Amino acid sequence: MRPSVSHLLASESPSPNVTVSGWVRTRRDSKACSFLEVGDGSCFRGIQVVVDANLPCSSLVQQILTGAAVEVEGELVASPASGQKWEIQARELRVLGLADGTYPLQKKGHTPEFLRTIGHLRPRTNLYGSVFRVRSRMSFAIHRFFNERGFFHVHTPIITASDCEGAGEMFRVTTLKQGAQSKPEEDFFGKPAYLTVSGQLQGEAFACAMGKIYTFGPTFRAENSNTTRHAAEFWMIEPEMAFCDLEADMSLAEENIRDLIRVMFEECADELDFLTKFVDKALTQRLRQTLDKPSERLSYTEAVEILKKSGRKFEYPVEWGEALQTEHERFLAEEHIKGPVTIFDYPRAIKPFYMRQNDDGRTVAAMDVLLPGIGEIIGGSQREERMDHLLAAMRLSGLSEDEYSWYLDLRRFGSVPHAGYGMGFERLLMFVTGVHNIRDVIPFARTPGHADF
Amino acid sequence: MRPSVSHLLASESPSPNVTVSGWVRTRRDSKACSFLEVGDGSCFRGIQVVVDANLPCSSLVQQILTGAAVEVEGELVASPASGQKWEIQARELRVLGLADGTYPLQKKGHTPEFLRTIGHLRPRTNLYGSVFRVRSRMSFAIHRFFNERGFFHVHTPIITASDCEGAGEMFRVTTLKQGAQSKPEEDFFGKPAYLTVSGQLQGEAFACAMGKIYTFGPTFRAENSNTTRHAAEFWMIEPEMAFCDLEADMSLAEENIRDLIRVMFEECADELDFLTKFVDKALTQRLRQTLDKPSERLSYTEAVEILKKSGRKFEYPVEWGEALQTEHERFLAEEHIKGPVTIFDYPRAIKPFYMRQNDDGRTVAAMDVLLPGIGEIIGGSQREERMDHLLAAMRLSGLSEDEYSWYLDLRRFGSVPHAGYGMGFERLLMFVTGVHNIRDVIPFARTPGHADF
Repeated sequence: MRPSVSHLLASESPSPNVTVSGWVRTRRDSKACSFLEVGDGSCFRGIQVVVDANLPCSSLVQQILTGAAVEVEGELVASPASGQKWEIQARELRVLGLADGTYPLQKKGHTPEFLRTIGHLRPRTNLYGSVFRVRSRMSFAIHRFFNERGFFHVHTPIITASDCEGAGEMFRVTTLKQGAQSKPEEDFFGKPAYLTVSGQLQGEAFACAMGKIYTFGPTFRAENSNTTRHAAEFWMIEPEMAFCDLEADMSLAEENIRDLIRVMFEECADELDFLTKFVDKALTQRLRQTLDKPSERLSYTEAVEILKKSGRKFEYPVEWGEALQTEHERFLAEEHIKGPVTIFDYPRAIKPFYMRQNDDGRTVAAMDVLLPGIGEIIGGSQREERMDHLLAAMRLSGLSEDEYSWYLDLRRFGSVPHAGYGMGFERLLMFVTGVHNIRDVIPFARTPGHADF
Repeated sequence: MRPSVSHLLASESPSPNVTVSGWVRTRRDSKACSFLEVGDGSCFRGIQVVVDANLPCSSLVQQILTGAAVEVEGELVASPASGQKWEIQARELRVLGLADGTYPLQKKGHTPEFLRTIGHLRPRTNLYGSVFRVRSRMSFAIHRFFNERGFFHVHTPIITASDCEGAGEMFRVTTLKQGAQSKPEEDFFGKPAYLTVSGQLQGEAFACAMGKIYTFGPTFRAENSNTTRHAAEFWMIEPEMAFCDLEADMSLAEENIRDLIRVMFEECADELDFLTKFVDKALTQRLRQTLDKPSERLSYTEAVEILKKSGRKFEYPVEWGEALQTEHERFLAEEHIKGPVTIFDYPRAIKPFYMRQNDDGRTVAAMDVLLPGIGEIIGGSQREERMDHLLAAMRLSGLSEDEYSWYLDLRRFGSVPHAGYGMGFERLLMFVTGVHNIRDVIPFARTPGHADF
């Protein structure tokens, strides 16, 4: 294949004969020549193409507006202009596809709201091009992180007939006609089926066979909440490890975050510069601090003490036994610790049945990793591996032993201490890009009333 | 973290002090000692643990049946037994979780049908452990293949309000109550929504911005067909490249298959040996031949000639203009070419609207890669980038310009030649593992009447 703009910009030496295809970002004309900035999406930057006015093909130049697709043959030479090492002196210029004056991305300074209405074109902008290159690199880095550590990727099912936590509104999946008086057993799966909210329970089954596994797939919530942090469809990473306790679980979670910030500095440097300039001025500094500062840990009980003593007026009062709210989490990470902090040993009553009960009788081996600017990014726990404890917790939660009999089998046959966590991929992306609305880190976001494209 | 069995088996030298955790596969007792084979899922093999009858912990041994989880401390020493380099002379043995006589995986020789009913336990067997380790390695190899070639991973939406090809039965996604007389606009997304059958159209939008992209996600078909090749939920890989024609598309597809077979030999050697011995005796040889033989190509028209002249009685008659059936595809790959073959330039009338029309007026720039034993594994095409041709094709297919106006924008603004393909992940897995039923390469398969676990 021909070299990308990214390859050409990284050239070691000039080259008499190169061909590049891409989209024109800007055009400037002088008497002697025209300058086209051509990008192909391979990297943040475009390459400058100089079209001499004496070339036969220069007659085409006047048709070429922002957004047009061109193919250029010419010579790669050192650029006299500042800020760019190389440019192309064109010999041949072909127009692949024009873009006329109705092209919506000609002018700069569109609002995110407008750009969401043209989700098929917005990845052509600097902002969304950056965000989606970062999304791709983070995705690969996550696979690499787990593969290097001996984890197996398991594709847990998207369609499920059970509900992981008994919590969260679920989407129903059906082939029945809406409004028809059909029986559930006439449906495709012979019973009601839903979109998964978590692959954890199935992940546990595979960890109890293959040792260390992770999932990385779409999950769904049918919550009718229109906030900047919620989408109906989002991607989640869920590692699960056999022979693992809460301590090792927290260490892996902290290292996971750290690794991804490193990738941002090492593999997304141009994007990070741009995002810091135009989206969040504090971004680079915040990521650097998070990377440099050792992770700190607080028990839930300590965290509640700190919040109570803070003298801060919170919207939700702080009381041992209540869930921490985003305002509490952000105070702990941003003001108290001034960096990432892991909270562990939460009250048993506010956590799901599968978390391992601590000896104190009132807490479970749960943990959340909190980040400045974001709040909770990871939630996890050691799982209850003791059959009697698990059964008691299920009874308390009113869950049916029958429905979970396969899950109980994991404790019946060769039960082992195991632990895992879930990381919201979009929340991670918001943290590393500084983008504040979840709709702007998802290629085509699904939210109440919106399933466009 | 402590070393896995896979690490211990690959040790360079003995070690006075190692700890290993895992599940007991077999136990043999002699007067002087007991032998436990312990596996932790990290690799195909287990490690032999020798428990001397004089050790205090040897009193535990009689409780330890197949499936029990143990933790062993001891010395890693060269094994006198054949077929294994290392074994562990135990000093300490702890039982983490027992497995009693009701453990279903004690005896060997269960049928796949029975093992599907215990999908939460079957990854503990040699067969399914192998299949799911292969699945994980193939998944990572696919990400690596595209990342090394400058592709960006795009997470196209799972929930969609449109249907990629107007073809295929779709699952509906809803929050309305079944049977209630609700209007579509009362549903979560304000209109009917479905599970995606392909991310191609959205992938094209991103290729026309970022150059080279791929998707790798779940796709869905609500077809009520109970065959060994169909599942309601399966994973698909869909690369899409701007500035790319059918020729380059076919080359990438052929290289993609070749790369994954190489991974099978290099990274799944133990699994390949096992699968060849116990699942498909011809597997290793077939993969080797596929790798060694250069990919061949035939136009659809040539393929039809060959089939007609073959003298073979096919169930479906061969006629120019008709789709090739699996029996035809397998004849071409297995008997005529005796290896992988790519068929290109299919009749326009049997292909979707978005494929690029050839100058002959009757074919389109479509291609399928066929493999011995499998038939079609990849289908792709160059896409129609010319607005007038695309509009004419849409009219012929009865599609609404309005609904596809965003897709038409890709041709309105800077249109470029582009191409892509789709590869069924499970079909690939069936090819590289020799496993004949799609239900046996999916962690928890979804088929008509089945959404268990």
